[in-house]
Amino acid sequence: MDRTTVCPLAQAYRLLNPGCVLLVSVGDAEADNLFALTWNMPVRRDPPMVAILSGKGHYSYPFMQRTGEFALNVPDAGLVDAVLGCGSTTGRDGLDKFARFGLSRAKATRIAAPLVAEAVASLECCVAQVVDLGSSALLVAQIVHAVAAADHFRDGQWRFDRGLRLLHHLGGERFCVSDRAIDARPP
Amino acid sequence: MDRTTVCPLAQAYRLLNPGCVLLVSVGDAEADNLFALTWNMPVRRDPPMVAILSGKGHYSYPFMQRTGEFALNVPDAGLVDAVLGCGSTTGRDGLDKFARFGLSRAKATRIAAPLVAEAVASLECCVAQVVDLGSSALLVAQIVHAVAAADHFRDGQWRFDRGLRLLHHLGGERFCVSDRAIDARPP
Repeated sequence: MDRTTVCPLAQAYRLLNPGCVLLVSVGDAEADNLFALTWNMPVRRDPPMVAILSGKGHYSYPFMQRTGEFALNVPDAGLVDAVLGCGSTTGRDGLDKFARFGLSRAKATRIAAPLVAEAVASLECCVAQVVDLGSSALLVAQIVHAVAAADHFRDGQWRFDRGLRLLHHLGGERFCVSDRAIDARPP
Repeated sequence: MDRTTVCPLAQAYRLLNPGCVLLVSVGDAEADNLFALTWNMPVRRDPPMVAILSGKGHYSYPFMQRTGEFALNVPDAGLVDAVLGCGSTTGRDGLDKFARFGLSRAKATRIAAPLVAEAVASLECCVAQVVDLGSSALLVAQIVHAVAAADHFRDGQWRFDRGLRLLHHLGGERFCVSDRAIDARPP
């Protein structure tokens, strides 16, 4: 998949607007991990910012605390088994989720964490603020670099004419798929 | 539409999991308003909590500050024109968005703000924490009551067998639609 297209930062929030489930990658020079993330949203357009929720007891949480970085990877629906797999296993016991679920590491531009090469977009993020919510934390982060598949994201919009199927989490093992756009009639 | 079914609070986050665009209703005894909201996410299951982003200069913001309340209404894709309308107009000059966009008020159970009767689900929320993000604020709120259309939300899951089409915002006047579920294969 052509993922060489850099997404202008002013358009990066559009990659997250439809509320998809994401694969989050974290890591440093020594180790990395992946987890599935349903609870995410943009919070600013310029500079582009995002908020994600993470359990503090999560294996990936100390990576984000230590490095201040993570990447958000947008999966096509073809990756649904990998998404559930990454969301229902832990990297704590040395499991390499990339290898286990058939995913490949791609080098990021601005952060140390690897990107998911099979994703239709990847956003590199630097944590700006941590909001304590008890057993979990809301991480507010700036998007510092983004790439997207040129086939599926053009002129700042997701496009469905070449087979894109965005994936949303319903609950448990069940997801829903959006694969067509509609235009509202302006008031 | 049958919206009489009370959604157990333990399942309420499932109404928001797929990342839909929402209609937010605010109000008190004297006035109310509606706006469209792309940026929202659950942040806790039990008690159920949600985070939404609101511009501080928004006409609806003082309503939420003053009352500490708002309702989230989930539109089916049939309401797409009303969603865009509510998102691209202001109530500041006395516009009644309910009347203008063909929506009806329904009485809430726990809050003063009206609900959108045409929505497939409505969640009544009480603000618990406000995170200052400069020109906007992240409102973290507890979901205190929820109803959903029994045809479309059963056993804690959105169901698509009776024509439900969930609506997600891509950007501008463009939205995408999810109308089928897929089950991932457990690892």
